[in-house]
Amino acid sequence: MLRMDLNCDLGEGFGPFLTQDDAGLLDEVSSANIACGYHAGDPAIMRRTVRLCLDKGVAIGAHPGLPDLHGFGRREMAISPREAYELVLYQVGALYAFVRAEGGVLHHVKPHGALYNMAAQDASLAQAIVDAILHFDDQLWLYGLAGSELITAAQQAGLPYAAEAFADRRYRSDGKLKPRSEADAVLSHEEAIQQALAIAQHCRVHTLEGEVVPIQADTLCVHGDGSRARKLLQELRKKLVREGLCISSPGTGG
Amino acid sequence: MLRMDLNCDLGEGFGPFLTQDDAGLLDEVSSANIACGYHAGDPAIMRRTVRLCLDKGVAIGAHPGLPDLHGFGRREMAISPREAYELVLYQVGALYAFVRAEGGVLHHVKPHGALYNMAAQDASLAQAIVDAILHFDDQLWLYGLAGSELITAAQQAGLPYAAEAFADRRYRSDGKLKPRSEADAVLSHEEAIQQALAIAQHCRVHTLEGEVVPIQADTLCVHGDGSRARKLLQELRKKLVREGLCISSPGTGG
Amino acid sequence: MLRMDLNCDLGEGFGPFLTQDDAGLLDEVSSANIACGYHAGDPAIMRRTVRLCLDKGVAIGAHPGLPDLHGFGRREMAISPREAYELVLYQVGALYAFVRAEGGVLHHVKPHGALYNMAAQDASLAQAIVDAILHFDDQLWLYGLAGSELITAAQQAGLPYAAEAFADRRYRSDGKLKPRSEADAVLSHEEAIQQALAIAQHCRVHTLEGEVVPIQADTLCVHGDGSRARKLLQELRKKLVREGLCISSPGTGG
Amino acid sequence: MLRMDLNCDLGEGFGPFLTQDDAGLLDEVSSANIACGYHAGDPAIMRRTVRLCLDKGVAIGAHPGLPDLHGFGRREMAISPREAYELVLYQVGALYAFVRAEGGVLHHVKPHGALYNMAAQDASLAQAIVDAILHFDDQLWLYGLAGSELITAAQQAGLPYAAEAFADRRYRSDGKLKPRSEADAVLSHEEAIQQALAIAQHCRVHTLEGEVVPIQADTLCVHGDGSRARKLLQELRKKLVREGLCISSPGTGG
Repeated sequence: MLRMDLNCDLGEGFGPFLTQDDAGLLDEVSSANIACGYHAGDPAIMRRTVRLCLDKGVAIGAHPGLPDLHGFGRREMAISPREAYELVLYQVGALYAFVRAEGGVLHHVKPHGALYNMAAQDASLAQAIVDAILHFDDQLWLYGLAGSELITAAQQAGLPYAAEAFADRRYRSDGKLKPRSEADAVLSHEEAIQQALAIAQHCRVHTLEGEVVPIQADTLCVHGDGSRARKLLQELRKKLVREGLCISSPGTGG
Repeated sequence: MLRMDLNCDLGEGFGPFLTQDDAGLLDEVSSANIACGYHAGDPAIMRRTVRLCLDKGVAIGAHPGLPDLHGFGRREMAISPREAYELVLYQVGALYAFVRAEGGVLHHVKPHGALYNMAAQDASLAQAIVDAILHFDDQLWLYGLAGSELITAAQQAGLPYAAEAFADRRYRSDGKLKPRSEADAVLSHEEAIQQALAIAQHCRVHTLEGEVVPIQADTLCVHGDGSRARKLLQELRKKLVREGLCISSPGTGG
Repeated sequence: MLRMDLNCDLGEGFGPFLTQDDAGLLDEVSSANIACGYHAGDPAIMRRTVRLCLDKGVAIGAHPGLPDLHGFGRREMAISPREAYELVLYQVGALYAFVRAEGGVLHHVKPHGALYNMAAQDASLAQAIVDAILHFDDQLWLYGLAGSELITAAQQAGLPYAAEAFADRRYRSDGKLKPRSEADAVLSHEEAIQQALAIAQHCRVHTLEGEVVPIQADTLCVHGDGSRARKLLQELRKKLVREGLCISSPGTGG
Repeated sequence: MLRMDLNCDLGEGFGPFLTQDDAGLLDEVSSANIACGYHAGDPAIMRRTVRLCLDKGVAIGAHPGLPDLHGFGRREMAISPREAYELVLYQVGALYAFVRAEGGVLHHVKPHGALYNMAAQDASLAQAIVDAILHFDDQLWLYGLAGSELITAAQQAGLPYAAEAFADRRYRSDGKLKPRSEADAVLSHEEAIQQALAIAQHCRVHTLEGEVVPIQADTLCVHGDGSRARKLLQELRKKLVREGLCISSPGTGG
């Protein structure tokens, strides 16, 4: 039986600033990436989101980002591999504390935003992030962009990993994501569901020009922000299930 | 054989701002309280200080503070017990990550500055801090002011604790510390050593007026800042050892 | 002709976290208090909000708060008068820069949240805030709670001031606001409009018990958060105008 | 009579973290660049440093940096020109408030660290910084790297500027600074004084290979950190004066 993980970024508010419908999204995904206080998230939100994940049986991941709350961790910063190692370790530990206090188990780590993108292309940053996870707990899964340096580093280190693809983002013929700055970068509702099915069932995506690009993914990311997020997730999940796929996080039975 | 723990706050720099001679101080103490990023400390400093402690065989404690880097966690803030619980858990987890990655064991938690003082007098804050520690790891020791609400809360919860006294601060006849704002609040070098011996050997301190105040302490705090800190620690340790005391952290053999 | 100022706190988002309908609220008020980056607000939001105020002819005020983004400046902190002076000056200058760059004029300063409440009761904090404003520009208006230490300090210093009352908060017989923690602390839509009229026309409020409490106010605050904020403001303004009041900021012609 | 400005970065502590001997350095320089709270500096330090500058007759400059206290503003961040404009304006205004409150005059703006370096090479960032200064006060001087985009942007906009050279950094034959990561990047005490004289008297520097590179500088930066900073400054000033140069900030009489 084919299986696919659906993941979503959650807990990305800060203090009085709350975002999205976290509880609603958690009904649809099999794993959640929880912000750890650097790009978003705070101790109160982390605790509440961890509790929600445990109540709904969703696998919990740390979602460490750059120390840039103002820029939401989306602005690239020239950090060294050593700094990447340290800030991932710090944030993973902080989230782990809430998971442990609530009696749960930490399942994975997915870097956020610019940290994710930088490490996807920079082998030394990828290695530093993999090292931080390994040194903390070598049973944790790394979620990283399919085909990226993050996945290569995890493979070489023997760290469990889940290659990630995006349901609602347009791919280019070289297998990379079309930048958000370009037109057609974000797929329509209907296209996203088609692309998710093509990835999950046939390990491929179709470009705008009609080319077929192979893509091997273990987890699909659906963005949690935006008003249509929950609706898209609901339909996507329903469609995948109807096609016979099992929606579950990596490493879990099923 | 009498024993006494000597503890010191360490790793209290931030980014480019480094303080005190951490390595030197670690030669003299049996336990260290490491700042966790809120009132001071950052991932790089935490990692380095944890490594130093392990190299020197010093028991490692988390030293969580209020979210006030500018005020060094010394300004009281009206936080709720729930907020205290959450910020202690967050910081303990962050430090734990570095201890775990370096192959060490987290030994204790000592709240910092205004958080320490507020919880010493406020039973609900003390309870929240004890809960945070208990929920994370009920084998951790709580370091708190001797005779304070922190110690009461730990006793009631069955959490291991170390009652703390101060070598270099003047006590009043009610057993409380003379506020720093008053004259004579800080003891001279010689007086501090005498007071440390009186506490360690006879469980008592002498006030300025000559009264004898009973004080039951498991650990003595010596402030790490100031140029004379290391010298005071060196002499203090030497004197205690010469008097036959064993300097070791709570719960360790000896 | 009677006149009344309507003021509202604005620009209280941060980075990716946006709040309320600032542009909509600005159609209804005569003065705006713009967050300056400590409890909320950032350079991008400050610039945009200043521009909006100038476009709509709304008097611009700096709204400095405590350095507590996580707590939205609502948690009391034990700051000294010197610290209050300095953090008000810093934030007033920062907002002033955007006003000056856009070709406008800074009109007033209203402390935010816990800073406002602490200074309302503490004469030395109130004096420090008044000094900061005086030293920057002695033509600026201070907005402070009617009958509070802030108003007293402004009067003694000869600083222009506007005594503030609240349309939608219940008053007690001693003239103070009922704490938000108590039931009935926030007025219904209809009650808020009645209270605003009573203040504007008859300089008095009615308590729950039917007592009449005198209150001399130059400006009415209506909270901008909450979905009903704009609607309340619209009706309030309409009603005040219909009753013959002129809605304008202090010191402006009309 | 030849003249030269000597400038130094000051006020670069934060909260409890104090650095260098600011008062001592101010005896030797003609202009100071004061940190504004983003990469370092806080309201208390800004106020104190402004007061010191006024007491010693040193021209006051704002020294805005990237929002990265942890990295001291030295890590490049992918900010947009719009963000650069806004963060410069914010910080300039904040410092201006202290200058105005103390009865002084703001003289110049010098971007800090990575912001300075990025804008030296990126015309759109340079333009944004020039715009921020122009919109605040078109009489302010911009201090920027000699021959860089910052100077070009100031020239085109008609903003007063001072081209900056470095006394204690090695130049390459293309007129650029040798990166700090390379050996020989930082000059010895004696070499720094020779280079300063060569720049001030003959508008040129000598490379390691003996080439002569023309350099037109109005101000010389001497780094304030490091224990030898004050001594170098003292000797440098003495030597320049003995050679007949007038040490004064741009635009001042003499």
